[in-house]
Amino acid sequence: MLRTNTCGELRLANVGQTVTLCGWVQRTRDKGAVLYLDLRDRYGLTQVVFEQGVEADELREQARNLGREFVVSITGRVAERYNKNPNLPTGDIEIRPEAVQVLNPAKLPPFLIEDETDGGDDLRMKYRYLDLRRNPVRRNLELRHRLAQSVRRYLDNQGFLEVETPVLIKSTPEGARDFVVPSRMNPGQFYALPQSPQTFKQLLMVSGFDRYFQIVKCFRDEDLRADRQPEFTQIDCEMAFVTQEDILQTFEGMTRQMFVEVKGFDPGEFPRMSYADAMRLYGSDKPDTRFAMQFVELNEVVKGHGFPVFDSAELVVGINAATCAQFTRKQLDELTDFVKRPQVGATGLVYARVEQDGNVKSSVDKFYSQEVLQQWKQAFNANPGDLLLILAGPADKTRKALNELRLEMGQRLGLRNKEDFRPLWVVDFPLLEFNEEEGRYYAMHHPFTSPKPEDIPLLDTNPGQVRANAYDLVINGVEIGGGSIRIHDRSVQASMFKLLGFSEEEAKAQFGFLLDAFEYGAPPHGGIAFGFDRLCSMFGGADSIRDFIAFPKNNSGRDVMIDSPSEISGAQLKELSIESKVEAAK
Amino acid sequence: MLRTNTCGELRLANVGQTVTLCGWVQRTRDKGAVLYLDLRDRYGLTQVVFEQGVEADELREQARNLGREFVVSITGRVAERYNKNPNLPTGDIEIRPEAVQVLNPAKLPPFLIEDETDGGDDLRMKYRYLDLRRNPVRRNLELRHRLAQSVRRYLDNQGFLEVETPVLIKSTPEGARDFVVPSRMNPGQFYALPQSPQTFKQLLMVSGFDRYFQIVKCFRDEDLRADRQPEFTQIDCEMAFVTQEDILQTFEGMTRQMFVEVKGFDPGEFPRMSYADAMRLYGSDKPDTRFAMQFVELNEVVKGHGFPVFDSAELVVGINAATCAQFTRKQLDELTDFVKRPQVGATGLVYARVEQDGNVKSSVDKFYSQEVLQQWKQAFNANPGDLLLILAGPADKTRKALNELRLEMGQRLGLRNKEDFRPLWVVDFPLLEFNEEEGRYYAMHHPFTSPKPEDIPLLDTNPGQVRANAYDLVINGVEIGGGSIRIHDRSVQASMFKLLGFSEEEAKAQFGFLLDAFEYGAPPHGGIAFGFDRLCSMFGGADSIRDFIAFPKNNSGRDVMIDSPSEISGAQLKELSIESKVEAAK
Repeated sequence: MLRTNTCGELRLANVGQTVTLCGWVQRTRDKGAVLYLDLRDRYGLTQVVFEQGVEADELREQARNLGREFVVSITGRVAERYNKNPNLPTGDIEIRPEAVQVLNPAKLPPFLIEDETDGGDDLRMKYRYLDLRRNPVRRNLELRHRLAQSVRRYLDNQGFLEVETPVLIKSTPEGARDFVVPSRMNPGQFYALPQSPQTFKQLLMVSGFDRYFQIVKCFRDEDLRADRQPEFTQIDCEMAFVTQEDILQTFEGMTRQMFVEVKGFDPGEFPRMSYADAMRLYGSDKPDTRFAMQFVELNEVVKGHGFPVFDSAELVVGINAATCAQFTRKQLDELTDFVKRPQVGATGLVYARVEQDGNVKSSVDKFYSQEVLQQWKQAFNANPGDLLLILAGPADKTRKALNELRLEMGQRLGLRNKEDFRPLWVVDFPLLEFNEEEGRYYAMHHPFTSPKPEDIPLLDTNPGQVRANAYDLVINGVEIGGGSIRIHDRSVQASMFKLLGFSEEEAKAQFGFLLDAFEYGAPPHGGIAFGFDRLCSMFGGADSIRDFIAFPKNNSGRDVMIDSPSEISGAQLKELSIESKVEAAK
Repeated sequence: MLRTNTCGELRLANVGQTVTLCGWVQRTRDKGAVLYLDLRDRYGLTQVVFEQGVEADELREQARNLGREFVVSITGRVAERYNKNPNLPTGDIEIRPEAVQVLNPAKLPPFLIEDETDGGDDLRMKYRYLDLRRNPVRRNLELRHRLAQSVRRYLDNQGFLEVETPVLIKSTPEGARDFVVPSRMNPGQFYALPQSPQTFKQLLMVSGFDRYFQIVKCFRDEDLRADRQPEFTQIDCEMAFVTQEDILQTFEGMTRQMFVEVKGFDPGEFPRMSYADAMRLYGSDKPDTRFAMQFVELNEVVKGHGFPVFDSAELVVGINAATCAQFTRKQLDELTDFVKRPQVGATGLVYARVEQDGNVKSSVDKFYSQEVLQQWKQAFNANPGDLLLILAGPADKTRKALNELRLEMGQRLGLRNKEDFRPLWVVDFPLLEFNEEEGRYYAMHHPFTSPKPEDIPLLDTNPGQVRANAYDLVINGVEIGGGSIRIHDRSVQASMFKLLGFSEEEAKAQFGFLLDAFEYGAPPHGGIAFGFDRLCSMFGGADSIRDFIAFPKNNSGRDVMIDSPSEISGAQLKELSIESKVEAAK
């Protein structure tokens, strides 16, 4: 190695040694007679001192000419510092240099390579290789590495085999939009990039592989919302001869080990909640359980008192924002504005304060006597100082709006601490979702999810009521993973495709290989997939996945650093037997 | 779990326990009063016995109806066998069943699920999920998993970070043909799938990541020779602040650890050979060093004796096939036919036997006296019983042909034992290759490889003579990995692009981001990439990579199991702003 040590490892014990460090010039501070240089690499920062009368003048002159981000090699002696820096792991020592070599000069970077940078998003993405030098971004990728290693170690110990499934596969109409790849050797035909290795991992179960996993890139050509990427990474897992309970246990174990190994604590046993309860108590299938503030349904208490909004509503439901009675008029107006936003969708907000004397004062006092308001208080189990926030309207829409309001209140009250981790299994998802517009059912998870055996009779009579052996792992209101016990019987799978509107031919053309496979001895099996980018950002205490991806794309699916996608040559198009209609229009 | 134990783990110590096994019916042997059933899973085989008067008749009747590959669950007691089977790890015990449950019946598979199958290649590829049940194929993928884990463990211990680089990147004209992906959001533009993460790993070095690796899918749209796949896997690695020596040491360590952990032996220190020596002594840059039979150049000994073929040849070169003097006329004719094949390309073969009395008898005795033939013998260091095989012609072509002949002789003499592993570093590759047809230089490794500093002056005067800091790891004549110290200086990189025929605009359009990056503090760096599929097949003692890939494609790039690639809908094409010219022609 060109270095003997890294910039993060020298301590008092090394004093007296002659070392060579390589790294980037973080900064120089020229005090005239003394020049300090901070040398940085991925392991840390080490101070180098050029002192008049101690180090040669030429060396100090040379150091004076080193700009930020120059790559240098410095050989010198490790010395104890006079003024130790307790905030720096190497703060007890400094280097007294004997030789300085510039390995590569550097232009002034377009933004500061510091924890707090002056670079805007666009600039940082264009010069992503410089942004990656900053500690916070680098640490995110180190965290990602450690999480991946932890996952692999756990699954390897549990007898899982990592098997690579193909990236060039086949386009299917179900699910999100596919990215496709024209085949030169098969003109007029296209591969698709996988949205997940779902069918392949099921085939591996049919093959007897028993316990499979893969940390694998997946692809979705979707319009990119703030925090989606066209390529993303899954921890993809499948097991045979298991029940749902086995899967929950196995992957609860994996997640707990990640917490222990990477965050240094064990979150304990994960609570479980049915989908029905999650929707009823939190209005969401991914409740943030860092704080309670559960929904209270009020229909029975509020109806028949002449308030038309409540009387006509399918659902009247509220939350108790404990200790918030002191909210000002302005704050309450803000909350009313909040719930009326289109993306929240409520028509208005009713509130009630529980005053210190126990009386309740509401925004709809003219309809409700104190006696009735006391019943509200009871329903919410509210105490003096509490604030009751109530929405009314169509059930689904109102729950969704109250979920948003609950999260907003949690945020305002500081109840959503990023270092407080509350995992939760949500179980018993519905098998199907009815799409009103299209008048058809869609698979809530995917078409391979098995119905609960006891609900199978409902498939003919009331498909919407059928529950699936499907489960999500939710942490702090974010879906981290999801999976199901799969169908392993050809006829059940065929019925499922039919229910989802596939003709027999379509089912055969798209998934014939899987239906066939089920006839040659398919074991009972199930699995789960984790969104690895999301999991990393969750562990890193961040909201966005982008900074946990080395080279992410922007919201238009562009990599602005390498300027991709880009046009390709006419010769390439011709070889692929395709024509660009954009080209043709020119 | 639906099982208490696997089919591979029960031993005498378990006798008396009641267990439940799940698996596939390998076979049943019905002896009337006793029926034997072999139950298989990925862990092994366990015998279940249904005996008249011991097990219930209904059970035996049920077992009689179980076909091959039925998936069953069997609960019973572990008993000691009368006739133990020492060839089976579970051969000391058998299961005396109490309950049998069919988890899924199976149609008769289209080929035998046995180590030796009756299924042809095409059938096995169509039903790959059944082929994967066979022990030899399953073991290949288990080996692959173990090798990947071993690599990750080693590199993690050495401070390498696994960083995922993007799959949707940018098409570049250099190298092999790209697979491309039309961008819906950027009409008329295309992503490309990476042939390797080369530029990204170099950017990570510029970012200070210092030690990077990734086990990563790469893609090349090439006409598929027997043993190429359009998608393949690399172990991709890069290090900063290193010399070539550091890289060789690090990855020799990695390879040795793989041998120790997976094959159970340490191959010792890897010898090194210059490219020039490899070509001179073996006629190949990937010599198979399991056997010697090095080339001996004979120009000085053979010329001027009136044999026109030798007198006019640029190179006369031969090998000593020790102990082969007893080869028959027929065998020698076969060898002559062999070297004349178009893919070998020699015009003829001269041979000479060293007889027991020390005399040499050659196929060209009329031109050479015994005295001269004794000089041949000396040049080859030959002994009585040896056979000398000699080719003549243009130097490159003749070396290539003699390499083929040498390998053929090694094969015939049983010197290429698949369990004998001889790793070798080939170093000092030329930087450039001259393409006669196009009258231009190509990068031998890739355009980012750095010339040896001492050869830089030759870049202007004699580029073909410039050696690179490039190296290959060769095992048993197969290139397993290759890499180089990279250019990290913008101006050297720009000169290199120019030498390779890039205009300044082209270089900027294709690799501007990398040239830019070199100006912001790029450290000296270098790396290596291993062909992981090839490495697995090498460790597995096989010639083909296909059986070390779970779901490979055939020579037309098709996955015949899922029937991909396939046509996509007009709506998809329209969304992507492309048109299929094959469609249009219909």
